[in-house]
Amino acid sequence: MSELSVNHLLGIKYLNKKDIELIFETADHFKEVINRSIKKVPTLRDTTIANIFFESSTRTKLSFELAEKRLSADVINFSASQSSVKKGETLIDTVNNILSMKVDMVVMRHPNPGAGIFLSKHVKASIINAGDGAHEHPTQALLDSYSIRERLGEVTGKNVVIVGDILHSRVALSNIFALKKQGAQVKVCGPKTLIPKYIESLGVSVETNLKKALEWCDVANMLRVQNERMDISYFPSTREYTQQFGVNKKLLDSLDKQIVIMHPGPINRGVEITSDVADSNQSIILEQVENGVAIRMAVIYLLASKIK
Amino acid sequence: MSELSVNHLLGIKYLNKKDIELIFETADHFKEVINRSIKKVPTLRDTTIANIFFESSTRTKLSFELAEKRLSADVINFSASQSSVKKGETLIDTVNNILSMKVDMVVMRHPNPGAGIFLSKHVKASIINAGDGAHEHPTQALLDSYSIRERLGEVTGKNVVIVGDILHSRVALSNIFALKKQGAQVKVCGPKTLIPKYIESLGVSVETNLKKALEWCDVANMLRVQNERMDISYFPSTREYTQQFGVNKKLLDSLDKQIVIMHPGPINRGVEITSDVADSNQSIILEQVENGVAIRMAVIYLLASKIK
Amino acid sequence: MSELSVNHLLGIKYLNKKDIELIFETADHFKEVINRSIKKVPTLRDTTIANIFFESSTRTKLSFELAEKRLSADVINFSASQSSVKKGETLIDTVNNILSMKVDMVVMRHPNPGAGIFLSKHVKASIINAGDGAHEHPTQALLDSYSIRERLGEVTGKNVVIVGDILHSRVALSNIFALKKQGAQVKVCGPKTLIPKYIESLGVSVETNLKKALEWCDVANMLRVQNERMDISYFPSTREYTQQFGVNKKLLDSLDKQIVIMHPGPINRGVEITSDVADSNQSIILEQVENGVAIRMAVIYLLASKIK
Repeated sequence: MSELSVNHLLGIKYLNKKDIELIFETADHFKEVINRSIKKVPTLRDTTIANIFFESSTRTKLSFELAEKRLSADVINFSASQSSVKKGETLIDTVNNILSMKVDMVVMRHPNPGAGIFLSKHVKASIINAGDGAHEHPTQALLDSYSIRERLGEVTGKNVVIVGDILHSRVALSNIFALKKQGAQVKVCGPKTLIPKYIESLGVSVETNLKKALEWCDVANMLRVQNERMDISYFPSTREYTQQFGVNKKLLDSLDKQIVIMHPGPINRGVEITSDVADSNQSIILEQVENGVAIRMAVIYLLASKIK
Repeated sequence: MSELSVNHLLGIKYLNKKDIELIFETADHFKEVINRSIKKVPTLRDTTIANIFFESSTRTKLSFELAEKRLSADVINFSASQSSVKKGETLIDTVNNILSMKVDMVVMRHPNPGAGIFLSKHVKASIINAGDGAHEHPTQALLDSYSIRERLGEVTGKNVVIVGDILHSRVALSNIFALKKQGAQVKVCGPKTLIPKYIESLGVSVETNLKKALEWCDVANMLRVQNERMDISYFPSTREYTQQFGVNKKLLDSLDKQIVIMHPGPINRGVEITSDVADSNQSIILEQVENGVAIRMAVIYLLASKIK
Repeated sequence: MSELSVNHLLGIKYLNKKDIELIFETADHFKEVINRSIKKVPTLRDTTIANIFFESSTRTKLSFELAEKRLSADVINFSASQSSVKKGETLIDTVNNILSMKVDMVVMRHPNPGAGIFLSKHVKASIINAGDGAHEHPTQALLDSYSIRERLGEVTGKNVVIVGDILHSRVALSNIFALKKQGAQVKVCGPKTLIPKYIESLGVSVETNLKKALEWCDVANMLRVQNERMDISYFPSTREYTQQFGVNKKLLDSLDKQIVIMHPGPINRGVEITSDVADSNQSIILEQVENGVAIRMAVIYLLASKIK
């Protein structure tokens, strides 16, 4: 039986195309099981997983927790706010302490890019990166590609545009890696100030005109506007952003084809997309959330099978 | 086999007498099981329940969690403070996201009256209202009536007085609905400023003299004084309140019968009731807490059986 | 079969030598089970345990939770910050409410010395003290002695020095009781202002010179420096403390034997011990954490068997 080429999920950067396919096939299996209303499989009865979140998170944490519980793993949650991190303990000490309690796997969100990579070199246990600063968010990119594959049959050959603040987005970066590895064409679209200089070196082209980008694509992945960030000093105000980079039903209907609309959530209705777009049948936003659990079950299952 | 007439528990207002009886008989069964030290039944092995609390809560949340775990359901907890609600997401988006993860039931506390009703029209999943503003708190009223039935044999025909801040109390309103549907007589007693004008239209009479109210009743349900509220501008100070509407042992002993004392908790000892009253054998306060778990198991079980 | 002489674990003070031995033998069993990768035993399937923390805690709470889950107990968590304690409820009311929900055991951390003892007289349920102010932290002392026994074969006859702020440390006091009951010799070492006057009445001698203390001992248990406390008014600044009472590799290597280094965590690297000491093979700090879960499983298991 095939297995992953990696012992950790630190970023899409470290996966190959076969890894991605294996994760998708495993997720297919789990999704089918859940849809038969058999919500729980006894697979990981003797596995303990620690969710270590140094940054707050709602949906990602909930999705991981559900995935872990449906695999029957034992779950412990650790968040930085209740933590000895405040007391001056180092990251490695904190995690090593948790691992000394015989934890097999760590799901970690951390504000510093590369925190998971650093950690994986110093501890015994599989590390799953649940977001590390503006670096990567690999399970999000996997569930995004999986949802495209589900809606359009395959990812290979599709045109995907990622719209928004590319500069600060781990979702964008992980998606770019995942899409390119599967043979999709990728454009990014957003305010020039929010597109990093190195983007073209990743094989990605830039399109600052939203309408042109949408005319080109099969799928538009609309990133969330970080209100906190926009309001301060970047060029566009939220209002200007919406005018230039927001998608509404009129714009969507003006295209000569039905493109697929994605969003990693939480949505600012009326900012990056309007309500009628979010709730239209071109939107697969709720499918993304649903698929997130199956993808995370698959990743956890595949990494756990390498430990035993 | 009989089943509930409703798909959600949004308020006592929507239940009929048969529903209440069915919940009580089901709770009898679960209570017996727990008392035989078989704390866990495998009934809801494949059911996932989300506890969504937009307002903080200790005992209600704990009671629901225990009920869910004893039914072997998978439980995920979501509280507004850690949530994307802060990031501007709408209630329906938040809940739909959670439900996309294949959640079967939502237990929700929300500061807005009617939040559960609104939600039930927009999402697929059973909704249990765990308190919506000053509107309803149906499981509290069910456990209150169940505790009266346990102590006095039945609710029908009993005289019940609810003492305290009726105006702001969801406990009072749900109790009034529950008691009237079961054929009890209900009076409310408290400062005039804290009794709503419409109360008599519910078939409830007002008695501002506590001693007279107690002489009339079989059961006195002493609401918690909301210190936060009292201290500001309402007529009675906490001290005045205690003098006029607090129950002490001397007052209790001056009655020519043994009335039953209830309290939804947490108690302000020395304010609405004195310690000797709270701890007397006329008090069924701890029985209420115990019955809360059985009642919640019954409600969850009965609603879950309608999903499958 | 032998059983504990107590119904609660309130402090090491109340245990006898046989109790400690029984706990260690039971922990041996659980540790072996965990090491065979059988992480979960069905022993306490019908037991509900409440973790009630009136003070924040990371590692102790995590360790208890894992121990409880590996015994298959149902676990509910209650922390003071979300609690009705704020609303003016008394400790007994809070705990009695939780116990009315048919909870069998309470693990409690509380800022007041003796809180667990007080509680054990007023409620039905086994109480485990997880730290009560500057009084006792019995499971920490048990895991410390267990780790010494594991590394050195036995505790009896060993020389142990406890270094640091003895005055405010529940870890120190519980360790002194545990070590003396097992026939170890104990010295304390630290700034005179941080050593209580009564210490010699416990059969413990004082050594203010760290080097002399280390030359004498087999084991040095390095307490955590409470930065919050040091910085204000006590004699030593953190820097002075480190110079006089911190252990570094050079000091360790200057001794003519290999002593064992312990620390209850979280470590201030560079303050009470340097990194090379913490990570050396003389340090058993991570073993302490690992053993903590097995010790807590043993304590919970032994107390639970007295309930049934």
